[in-house]
Amino acid sequence: MLIVMDKNATDEQIEVVEEKVRSLGWTPHEIPGSIRIAIGITGNRGAVDQTLFANMPGVVECIPVSKPYKLVSRDVKPEDTIVRAGGIDIGDNRLVMMAGPCSVESRSQIMEVAEFVKSHGAQFLRGGAYKPRTSPYSFQGLKEEGLKYLREAAEKFGLAVVTEVKDTETLPLVSDYSDLLQIGARNMHNFSLLEAAGRIKKPIMLKRGIAATVEEWLMAAEYIASQGNYDIILCERGIRTFETYTRNTLDLNAVPLVKHLSHLPVVVDPSHGTGSWELVVPMALAAVAAGADGLLVEVHPHPEKALSDGKQSLRPEKFAELTQKLQQILPAFNKRYN
Amino acid sequence: MLIVMDKNATDEQIEVVEEKVRSLGWTPHEIPGSIRIAIGITGNRGAVDQTLFANMPGVVECIPVSKPYKLVSRDVKPEDTIVRAGGIDIGDNRLVMMAGPCSVESRSQIMEVAEFVKSHGAQFLRGGAYKPRTSPYSFQGLKEEGLKYLREAAEKFGLAVVTEVKDTETLPLVSDYSDLLQIGARNMHNFSLLEAAGRIKKPIMLKRGIAATVEEWLMAAEYIASQGNYDIILCERGIRTFETYTRNTLDLNAVPLVKHLSHLPVVVDPSHGTGSWELVVPMALAAVAAGADGLLVEVHPHPEKALSDGKQSLRPEKFAELTQKLQQILPAFNKRYN
Amino acid sequence: MLIVMDKNATDEQIEVVEEKVRSLGWTPHEIPGSIRIAIGITGNRGAVDQTLFANMPGVVECIPVSKPYKLVSRDVKPEDTIVRAGGIDIGDNRLVMMAGPCSVESRSQIMEVAEFVKSHGAQFLRGGAYKPRTSPYSFQGLKEEGLKYLREAAEKFGLAVVTEVKDTETLPLVSDYSDLLQIGARNMHNFSLLEAAGRIKKPIMLKRGIAATVEEWLMAAEYIASQGNYDIILCERGIRTFETYTRNTLDLNAVPLVKHLSHLPVVVDPSHGTGSWELVVPMALAAVAAGADGLLVEVHPHPEKALSDGKQSLRPEKFAELTQKLQQILPAFNKRYN
Amino acid sequence: MLIVMDKNATDEQIEVVEEKVRSLGWTPHEIPGSIRIAIGITGNRGAVDQTLFANMPGVVECIPVSKPYKLVSRDVKPEDTIVRAGGIDIGDNRLVMMAGPCSVESRSQIMEVAEFVKSHGAQFLRGGAYKPRTSPYSFQGLKEEGLKYLREAAEKFGLAVVTEVKDTETLPLVSDYSDLLQIGARNMHNFSLLEAAGRIKKPIMLKRGIAATVEEWLMAAEYIASQGNYDIILCERGIRTFETYTRNTLDLNAVPLVKHLSHLPVVVDPSHGTGSWELVVPMALAAVAAGADGLLVEVHPHPEKALSDGKQSLRPEKFAELTQKLQQILPAFNKRYN
Repeated sequence: MLIVMDKNATDEQIEVVEEKVRSLGWTPHEIPGSIRIAIGITGNRGAVDQTLFANMPGVVECIPVSKPYKLVSRDVKPEDTIVRAGGIDIGDNRLVMMAGPCSVESRSQIMEVAEFVKSHGAQFLRGGAYKPRTSPYSFQGLKEEGLKYLREAAEKFGLAVVTEVKDTETLPLVSDYSDLLQIGARNMHNFSLLEAAGRIKKPIMLKRGIAATVEEWLMAAEYIASQGNYDIILCERGIRTFETYTRNTLDLNAVPLVKHLSHLPVVVDPSHGTGSWELVVPMALAAVAAGADGLLVEVHPHPEKALSDGKQSLRPEKFAELTQKLQQILPAFNKRYN
Repeated sequence: MLIVMDKNATDEQIEVVEEKVRSLGWTPHEIPGSIRIAIGITGNRGAVDQTLFANMPGVVECIPVSKPYKLVSRDVKPEDTIVRAGGIDIGDNRLVMMAGPCSVESRSQIMEVAEFVKSHGAQFLRGGAYKPRTSPYSFQGLKEEGLKYLREAAEKFGLAVVTEVKDTETLPLVSDYSDLLQIGARNMHNFSLLEAAGRIKKPIMLKRGIAATVEEWLMAAEYIASQGNYDIILCERGIRTFETYTRNTLDLNAVPLVKHLSHLPVVVDPSHGTGSWELVVPMALAAVAAGADGLLVEVHPHPEKALSDGKQSLRPEKFAELTQKLQQILPAFNKRYN
Repeated sequence: MLIVMDKNATDEQIEVVEEKVRSLGWTPHEIPGSIRIAIGITGNRGAVDQTLFANMPGVVECIPVSKPYKLVSRDVKPEDTIVRAGGIDIGDNRLVMMAGPCSVESRSQIMEVAEFVKSHGAQFLRGGAYKPRTSPYSFQGLKEEGLKYLREAAEKFGLAVVTEVKDTETLPLVSDYSDLLQIGARNMHNFSLLEAAGRIKKPIMLKRGIAATVEEWLMAAEYIASQGNYDIILCERGIRTFETYTRNTLDLNAVPLVKHLSHLPVVVDPSHGTGSWELVVPMALAAVAAGADGLLVEVHPHPEKALSDGKQSLRPEKFAELTQKLQQILPAFNKRYN
Repeated sequence: MLIVMDKNATDEQIEVVEEKVRSLGWTPHEIPGSIRIAIGITGNRGAVDQTLFANMPGVVECIPVSKPYKLVSRDVKPEDTIVRAGGIDIGDNRLVMMAGPCSVESRSQIMEVAEFVKSHGAQFLRGGAYKPRTSPYSFQGLKEEGLKYLREAAEKFGLAVVTEVKDTETLPLVSDYSDLLQIGARNMHNFSLLEAAGRIKKPIMLKRGIAATVEEWLMAAEYIASQGNYDIILCERGIRTFETYTRNTLDLNAVPLVKHLSHLPVVVDPSHGTGSWELVVPMALAAVAAGADGLLVEVHPHPEKALSDGKQSLRPEKFAELTQKLQQILPAFNKRYN
């Protein structure tokens, strides 16, 4: 249930309501809106009796929430959420570009890419240091060394860092080096990691699992929010279907659907979503047209030598072409590129 | 195999080559390009010996085609195909809009919709008269009466007609009333219908089956082409996945992928593709950004009363909004709307 | 709705009820049970008012049927249906074995296989004469010549014939040569063919479409039944999933599920269902354990030379091994093999 | 690569080979067979030069392994592996029955179930204490209290314990209370957990992810084995498809397929695999017919009151019926039940 407070409700009135929620064994969550505060309740089983709160001072309305997710639902917070990470706002009318190699492979490689993507308007430098790989015998990333290179490159060129965290053990370390923490598709149902991510003070980018319904994805975001971290960005990166020509099937339907159901920003990863560099540019443009707030794009100076995902990485000149096209089309969507 | 003829090759030289193909028990297909003609060979088993044709007068080159589809492959014809149907070119830089109700329900209904969509720039009037329905007890369409209303409405308002043909029995009749014949998703693997469609002189719009890979879809187009009808338009309309929130998963990856593999025009149907009117406008814009040559959109004056697919039909005012947005964004894609 | 008649209801009472159904614009369907007759109603929109029939002489009960399929539903007919085809009962406690090559390739081939499978207890000879193939350039079957060979071989060795019909044009011809008509997976949603199959007097084996839900499959069977042909056998042959190691994913869950929802017999095709001969024997045994009434198995004397589907065909000795194992396990399931 | 040692090879010869592997920067894995030992090599990139080992004393043969998984591949170890857990052998000719509630809900509940399933021949007591749940607001298990009840009940009635471990944090604790550790479907791609499971001395039952191909599943097992724990059991528990009638699609094809590709034992979970108690008995029998080495079945004394998964739990009398049928059919498969 959602308790909507009056726009003039005092801090004390809010506290009294929250105390009552706690006294019933549940958890209150303050959800700030543009003009008023609402208090979400979690921890209850079954419906909450509205009369418990309806007449308390400062309470305007009690709204039952029937969806299984609450804190991330647009029912609970009609306004778009803008998440601030590394000084960058995600979810407003500036398209956010996150670009870089699949894996950090060397200091010189990440420096080269960082300079290039910065000069073409990216705000975030991406790059994997801890890589979840299907095979135990594949390159698993440079680990902390990779994080250091990533941070150094980002700071040198004025970029924010987004990188994947693959387990709770490395969460504090990865968090120290990054501005936005990515939870990958394979970990979308790793509830222990989601809960740990909900307890730190760092924005989270949650990728959709390859076989996760939109509802399950939002439930995973709810796990994070239920622990108190509301700075969540969703990232569509392709689902698994019967089609074998593409590595995954980038599901752009999810973009307007999620924006309809939730107030969270949505970013699209056309590189993993298609698995094929030839499709990245048209699908990136399509993602923007579908309403995405940002793009996560793999760029590699020499894709043919990449230690992972070379097939889906854009060469620098192709990335430059993408950014030019984005500048052309964004005004038609009331957005801008840098 | 593909035999590329010299740009100055004479009709006689072409005829001699084709005669030789026939003498070997195979079938020649003339594939006109912008500056020269190529001759595709079908009916062969295994590889064709290139030396059979390489030295014939007028022959420039013999190219082996390894893909299982040949006539619809871009390897065989690098230029985009423009299909002319009802006086409208599909596949050039004008976005083609096909709009109308799911089913023709009455004369007045189709008249009302036709006038409206024409006034908002549509070139084609769509509407089902023979409806393939999952249940034998559902409304199966007005049949020939529906075709008459459709034709009458289209002619009154200067529109071309696109409508579905569901079997070989009704193919001649449906063909008489329409400018573009739609083969629906459920019939994409109805090879007898595909072959019959390949033998008539009417452009075909071939929808992708709900579980068809892109390769199978192109093979189905090849069935039509192999019978001599090269006027084929492909239509992506959503595939079946595990996601249940949307009726289907509109697969926009297929748009740039098919345009990469084939020279045929591609149209997108966001109405069936999503099953939900709220998603139609953003996905229509995304389809255009992904490279679609046209859109097939369900419009109904009173969706809540529709005999089929009301949930996914746009109200007229929403359709008007879509056409306005298209006019805004198309120039950024070097296209125009009407 | 289903009108259950008294076990002593007279023919006249039944006729009066049916007449009333017709007078309301609907269609009555007599559904004979072991001790009484029921009358199904189709053609109605929305619920049927039970009081219209409840007090008529000979009527015991009026049961609303909420499922979208009616005639094939177990709600309407609780007893298992036994379909008789070519003198063979399908659906009783004798497992029905249908075996033979994917395609009829020559007279000698089909004679050789027929003799072999008969000697190992098969009741039906299978073999395709009209083949729906993904490529227009693949072997399309021997057509009528193939049907002749098939019939000749079956008669010589005392087998019944099951073969696929792929369109309404060839339906009468294929029907003349066969005892059981197969409608293939690709045609499960070819409603014109289903309706035509519903109007002939020949049992139909309806394969499940590769992306058809169990409900859609039963609706397709309902199309046939709604035209008056109740002699329908369902055949599970694998669905399309993300798994690429097997050609299809044989869905044995569908066997107990369909038997729970419907009174129709169910046969399983482990050859197409797996696409791999190594998996055919274990999956055939599993199908029987799951409750299948019969098996459809591809057998070829020389799989490596087969014109279609060699990879999934059993060699004769492997087929012999399967029939031995079936004889061992069937008694544990209260069934017998021949 | 796999280095096959002579059956009379001395320990010293083996050690010399392993030392050479290590000296090249790779890792040797001893894989004991029934008559000889083989040494698997991991950690190499690209092919290993066979001449490095071919002439060493005691080496019989060097076999290149082309599959991406090595230690779990049947190429590397042709004999079936028998895993011993809690004193029970899994993978021999006695079917292993693991039964119990989805969640441990109370001491009395687990005692009641344990007594019942033991009296019907189960060897393992199952029950979740740490539950990964889609919603953060669902019952998450009794945690350590649940483990204590589970252990107590198992010891009282002479059963072994199998229970799920959901993260590395609780791995040591869960390991202390259990004989066989289950890694659930949602964690199949949680590589940190797989690696941690590979470093402890406790058998692991690895469930297949809902969208994991058989190859990815074997790669996940390889993660565990690559850390030195070879006591791995695979568990098929249903995959996600388009079918919505069943919760999942139990993929029995995977049973013979995995046994063909790998030497590891395979267990089937028809409860999660179908999500519907009506389908559990036939699918359990089908699993055995397909070659499963064991079953994992949910049993609950009062399914309608279960805190999780009540719909798919068998009542005790239904479980008793299953065990009777198993005793009837197992001899036909050269297996026995208890």
